[in-house]
Amino acid sequence: MTKQTLKVVKIGGNVINNEEALFSFLKDFADLDGPKILVHGGGRKATEVSSAMGLEPKMINGRRVTDEATVEVVTMVYAGLLNKKIVAQLQKNNCNALGLSGADANCILAHKRIVKDVDYGFAGDVDAINSEIIDVLLQNNVTPVFCAITHDKNGQLLNTNADTIASEVAIGMSELYNTELNFVFELKGVLESINDKDSVITEINSEKYKQLIAAGIIADGMLPKMHNCFNALEEGVSKVKIGDASLVKKSTKLYTTLSL
Amino acid sequence: MTKQTLKVVKIGGNVINNEEALFSFLKDFADLDGPKILVHGGGRKATEVSSAMGLEPKMINGRRVTDEATVEVVTMVYAGLLNKKIVAQLQKNNCNALGLSGADANCILAHKRIVKDVDYGFAGDVDAINSEIIDVLLQNNVTPVFCAITHDKNGQLLNTNADTIASEVAIGMSELYNTELNFVFELKGVLESINDKDSVITEINSEKYKQLIAAGIIADGMLPKMHNCFNALEEGVSKVKIGDASLVKKSTKLYTTLSL
Repeated sequence: MTKQTLKVVKIGGNVINNEEALFSFLKDFADLDGPKILVHGGGRKATEVSSAMGLEPKMINGRRVTDEATVEVVTMVYAGLLNKKIVAQLQKNNCNALGLSGADANCILAHKRIVKDVDYGFAGDVDAINSEIIDVLLQNNVTPVFCAITHDKNGQLLNTNADTIASEVAIGMSELYNTELNFVFELKGVLESINDKDSVITEINSEKYKQLIAAGIIADGMLPKMHNCFNALEEGVSKVKIGDASLVKKSTKLYTTLSL
Repeated sequence: MTKQTLKVVKIGGNVINNEEALFSFLKDFADLDGPKILVHGGGRKATEVSSAMGLEPKMINGRRVTDEATVEVVTMVYAGLLNKKIVAQLQKNNCNALGLSGADANCILAHKRIVKDVDYGFAGDVDAINSEIIDVLLQNNVTPVFCAITHDKNGQLLNTNADTIASEVAIGMSELYNTELNFVFELKGVLESINDKDSVITEINSEKYKQLIAAGIIADGMLPKMHNCFNALEEGVSKVKIGDASLVKKSTKLYTTLSL
């Protein structure tokens, strides 16, 4: 039997920080046919609330360290405010959304990142996706909306990378579905030249990927993002697309498709 | 066919504000047999976060007015921090909890309270419970955990009374289940004398209820609470119990049972 196609769409700060852009994106997302899952990152609000609460951001090697007070703030902002705002907006657009953290129905089990040189605090690394209960929701026409909070099954909530959650959910669901992973970010796709916002490389396979890294076209922040995408493809995800917020519109033709 | 019994348990600030008491209660709740639902109110944390964010509590006739900034804070604290802490703790105790606001899967549809003399702001009055999707969760051994946030299906989140949510959920589920509603509060039950904490009136029916009001034994804050309970019984809930946090323990014998 042919598997149904499931779309897993990830949005980040660039869409979330602008309410108008977010609501417009959510309208397009609500209009997508078939089973789908939304994964959202954080955004500016967590920083606002943190500083209102008198917390100083702690960084080690350019990475945020999540202490106990910070994991409380991100749980409030990501799992509370952002998640429920998104869910309420999708409901308005007749998409039967249901917001989830990894703790809910044990959907995403993680562990606190192992301390090697640096203790990143309550940062989660994903161990397992509970595809069975996610499938129950999908089969009842519910659209799961994941925030980037997981748990360790021992009562501890963990701040987790939203790109990782999106790819792990897509991988976890790929036994049951033909999964397509969409990453929405600030550009129209992977660019040939950073100075030309329309110079989108429309197709990248494993070989081209290596060439683009060697040529320095894929560099810096794009490296872990692309690594995450190719890892998802190797682990069973059928297709990965990268583009801006118009990626979920049926009319959009300019984006990057990744394949093995 | 005999209906399955469903327990709907509501906890408030007195349990939530003390982490040790909360975790101990959640362990007992996790041990309850059969399908169950938890509903939690707010607590001190929302006030802490509000004042950190520079918000002044607004009261009219002793009732809180929910402006836009306040509904954001309660969504953060109730749907985010408290709900996910409770869910993570139940997961630790092998109870497959899933946290919900009314917006999630459109479980609880409400409307902004109609302005008569006073505009209470974004306070929600419940219109409907989506028993179908709640039943899907229960039938998959998931324990729904509701916070006191609802929505209006037009993108607006609404601060809602947790006692009302508990009784509306119990009423909504009573077509499918034999529902028992448990209210956990600071006392062992309805007291004959407020000065004797053990003077619990163990059984109250409609007639006794009227007598206790006439005698001034049920007064003040207990009046709306009891009205809410008897309303639930009239609308199809089989049994209502009121007691302290030990109410969910199998060994507890001292509490008040309400019946028509």
